[in-house]
Amino acid sequence: MSGMTHPMLDKHRDTLDQALAAIADRGYFSIYPESPSPRVYGENAAADGKAEFDALLNSEFALGQPGTRDHVATEQSPYGIEMNIAYPRADPDALIEAATSAWTSWRAAEPEIRAAVCIEILQRIHSHVFTMANAVHMTTGQAYVMGFQAGGPHALDRGLEAVAYGYFEQARTPKTAYWKKPAGKGDPLSLENTFRIAPRGIAALIACNTFPTWNSYPGLFASLVTGNPVIVKPHPFAVLPLALTVKFAREVLAEAGFDPNLVTLCIDGSGDTNAAYLAKHPKVKIVDFTGSSQFGDWLEANAGQAQVFTEKAGVNTVVIDSTDDFKGLCRNLAFTLCLYSGQMCTTTQAIFIPEGGIETPDGHLSYDEVTAGIAKAVEKLTGDDAKAVELIGALATDDVAQRVENAASLGDVVLPSRTITHPKYPNARVRTPLLLSVSAQDRKSYGSECFGPITFFVKTQDTGESLRMVSDVVAEKGALTMGVYSTDAAVLADAETVACDAAVNLSCNLTGGVFVNQTAAFGDFHGTGGNPAANSALTDGAYVSNRFRMVEIRRHVPVRD
Amino acid sequence: MSGMTHPMLDKHRDTLDQALAAIADRGYFSIYPESPSPRVYGENAAADGKAEFDALLNSEFALGQPGTRDHVATEQSPYGIEMNIAYPRADPDALIEAATSAWTSWRAAEPEIRAAVCIEILQRIHSHVFTMANAVHMTTGQAYVMGFQAGGPHALDRGLEAVAYGYFEQARTPKTAYWKKPAGKGDPLSLENTFRIAPRGIAALIACNTFPTWNSYPGLFASLVTGNPVIVKPHPFAVLPLALTVKFAREVLAEAGFDPNLVTLCIDGSGDTNAAYLAKHPKVKIVDFTGSSQFGDWLEANAGQAQVFTEKAGVNTVVIDSTDDFKGLCRNLAFTLCLYSGQMCTTTQAIFIPEGGIETPDGHLSYDEVTAGIAKAVEKLTGDDAKAVELIGALATDDVAQRVENAASLGDVVLPSRTITHPKYPNARVRTPLLLSVSAQDRKSYGSECFGPITFFVKTQDTGESLRMVSDVVAEKGALTMGVYSTDAAVLADAETVACDAAVNLSCNLTGGVFVNQTAAFGDFHGTGGNPAANSALTDGAYVSNRFRMVEIRRHVPVRD
Repeated sequence: MSGMTHPMLDKHRDTLDQALAAIADRGYFSIYPESPSPRVYGENAAADGKAEFDALLNSEFALGQPGTRDHVATEQSPYGIEMNIAYPRADPDALIEAATSAWTSWRAAEPEIRAAVCIEILQRIHSHVFTMANAVHMTTGQAYVMGFQAGGPHALDRGLEAVAYGYFEQARTPKTAYWKKPAGKGDPLSLENTFRIAPRGIAALIACNTFPTWNSYPGLFASLVTGNPVIVKPHPFAVLPLALTVKFAREVLAEAGFDPNLVTLCIDGSGDTNAAYLAKHPKVKIVDFTGSSQFGDWLEANAGQAQVFTEKAGVNTVVIDSTDDFKGLCRNLAFTLCLYSGQMCTTTQAIFIPEGGIETPDGHLSYDEVTAGIAKAVEKLTGDDAKAVELIGALATDDVAQRVENAASLGDVVLPSRTITHPKYPNARVRTPLLLSVSAQDRKSYGSECFGPITFFVKTQDTGESLRMVSDVVAEKGALTMGVYSTDAAVLADAETVACDAAVNLSCNLTGGVFVNQTAAFGDFHGTGGNPAANSALTDGAYVSNRFRMVEIRRHVPVRD
Repeated sequence: MSGMTHPMLDKHRDTLDQALAAIADRGYFSIYPESPSPRVYGENAAADGKAEFDALLNSEFALGQPGTRDHVATEQSPYGIEMNIAYPRADPDALIEAATSAWTSWRAAEPEIRAAVCIEILQRIHSHVFTMANAVHMTTGQAYVMGFQAGGPHALDRGLEAVAYGYFEQARTPKTAYWKKPAGKGDPLSLENTFRIAPRGIAALIACNTFPTWNSYPGLFASLVTGNPVIVKPHPFAVLPLALTVKFAREVLAEAGFDPNLVTLCIDGSGDTNAAYLAKHPKVKIVDFTGSSQFGDWLEANAGQAQVFTEKAGVNTVVIDSTDDFKGLCRNLAFTLCLYSGQMCTTTQAIFIPEGGIETPDGHLSYDEVTAGIAKAVEKLTGDDAKAVELIGALATDDVAQRVENAASLGDVVLPSRTITHPKYPNARVRTPLLLSVSAQDRKSYGSECFGPITFFVKTQDTGESLRMVSDVVAEKGALTMGVYSTDAAVLADAETVACDAAVNLSCNLTGGVFVNQTAAFGDFHGTGGNPAANSALTDGAYVSNRFRMVEIRRHVPVRD
């Protein structure tokens, strides 16, 4: 990185170097504190952020981007508050034209300067992290602290990780290389080869409604750092977190001397289908998508002119064979099932337990005792309404609420779902998790994604059958996570084999403060990209290496020593 | 790489380390001497190789692979000799079944051991390099020395380069990482994360008839080193080079303790369409292809279950604006046009020259003087039949010969093609290059690939128009190479901009021993993968990173310092 100067590069060079070290050693790394405590962020930070959020409600959101047709408000908060924020609805062709024009100087910029500008964007978002926390909380239904953490620092971590991978991939080939080939008795052949980055082109980022920032920042920053403009297409129900992101990105790009139209917002009004339009546009060369398997599969099959990165749906599983800490197992799994009402793409949906029960330090427990233990732990976390809502949040959509309603007939109810009146937001959609018991043969119940607070205990003959069922389900439907509990090294080894064969990440014997549905940037990959739930992991070499190409320029130079 | 032991790893660890250093600095690197001289390879090496080759003619080729239906001989040597080698024609399903079974231990092997086994395969092939030289020479029509160099050492270089990139991509993530996250006043969260390689699955390698080894080794070794079995589907006219490759690979795999069915040969008999069958097979997860744009585009659109890497056809261009060495320019371009009768995917097809001529140190030269100078240099290289055939080789197929015949009417003939009787092989198809002059408007003549010894001089208004035509043609048809001659820094800068925008590699002012149609492993990328001529470069991060996925296993461990 020697020689390049730009004020933002001077400012963020150390951060970039640290992030590069972290992707190499994959230890713990974060520069965005995850605690919303006033001791960390200052006494007024939370209140200021809330005030900034409140000021956005019931108004027009200004972006200053071209091609605005009109303003539309599409959000429906799961907490039942009136958002009424009117966003500029753009002509997608105008955004493509503006991005094409903005691209010239960005694609020509040195990768380290692009990286520094990206880090400044992350920092700018971070300086409004409480505003973002409210935005994510109120549009997704995540509880406030989760909205802060997952929507703020953890999303920023993922963004920085993408910047590091994207920068590394460009920097691994030297900008110039001297090449000298011996030529027998004659003078050696002597060339100076220059390697220039050729970014792919416009990226369309198609976001989901449950994790608008966390699932988008990897693609957004991977595309940006590798030199591509990004058109952000948010989910109609979760626009604000990405509108803020786009606004801050545009501010920073302009300050850095680039065209702000490198990052624009493209929202759907009623009847618009901008995601499909953008994805098939000949000038769109990259598509990043988080959402349904149906649309993700369509994108993979139809956006042939683009590199397509998808994160879709799957069936996440846990296999319980035995444990040395049954209480820890119950607490841990209960937290996973409750957090954000199971509306994470990583939440466990099917828990496989042998019909003969399991061994624990307190003796043998029957199948029913195991499921009852987990159910009791869920009850404990959700028994107090005021505390429960800080964990389970609200259901993102009416569809999820309806699904919980309908799911009760899919198996034997171990723990019914309970409707809670939110103490602060009486119109919020809040329901506690539904736990069902089914047999291994009921694959049509548990074997497809059943998004929301619905979990199936699956009774199997033995752990061998549990692992076989996991193999089958993941091969067919995919998964982002898998867990196993066992005190038997052979079972753990078998589970690892199943995980490797099915290409799903595996967590073993989680009984403490790490959960199967949570991953950390730099330490953990999110998914593998090797099963039907996703074609990419966030973030690795494959996620960034094809967002640009390399152009080589060869020139003769005098022979050097 | 500490801790791993395997005899082949002990043997090749240094080579791997050197290759890893070479992909990082991209200087000159080769361990396979390109000179066929007896001083390098020993007095008997050439004769031994010829004898080994001769012994293969008119016989059954033994591979010991499963599923053999019958034996078929499909080769038609461009030199008109009778090959009559009968290869085992396999049931492709039997090869897929055998590869699936062979995969188990290979996918579980450590990447460094796979890398070492790959390097041993390369070394084994190298120990039969004169056999391979004859095989490539006689099946492709390349002259003998070129068959040796491009088919032997240069192909092996590319193979080693792919091993290095593929190994690096797996090794950049540590096998285990310790992750410790501070948790306020409590104990830190403490995990040991294991990262395991999950190779994609069976690779189908679909080869071309002109460079059976050079264009295949990158994909073959990229797939193998990342843990995937490879089914090799050669072109029916150029089977032997890949049959030998498969044979040596199988030998080494067995010696290394792996199942030889990791590498098998799948040839087409009359009416077979194994390439398409394999490419769409659900168990085939990787396709590497070199050949026509038509089939390459079909693969990209239809082999949706696989990662598809293609190298197709394009229109390679040179822009002549001015030069400080006209003789050098003529010599250099003439060699490019003559080498292997222009049957390289990198050979220049269209040379753009201003109608007003160009400036040289010897004064102004008119358009006609420029084309005449190049034509004269081609005549000089091809005037003596015995010498000419050692450069131009033979035409690979009757189609190429027919194309030369038909092409004479596509423009004004600057230099007619001459039929040569090969002094040694009277039935060889040998023709000298045809040089034509056309106007910039004749894009239907020069603007599509015209494979073979056919070159168009394109008369333009000025260099600005030349560069615009190059932009247009490359955007539409793609290209693997571009050259420019100019003494004007501004023109060179404009050419570089055109090259970057069109994503085509550019060679500037080549007047010596480096040619626009030749690239060297480690130093040069082959194509960019960013225009319609190819979707990948041989070899870079993007070429290897999606041939496997990573599976993470998380486990709690006691807190470490």
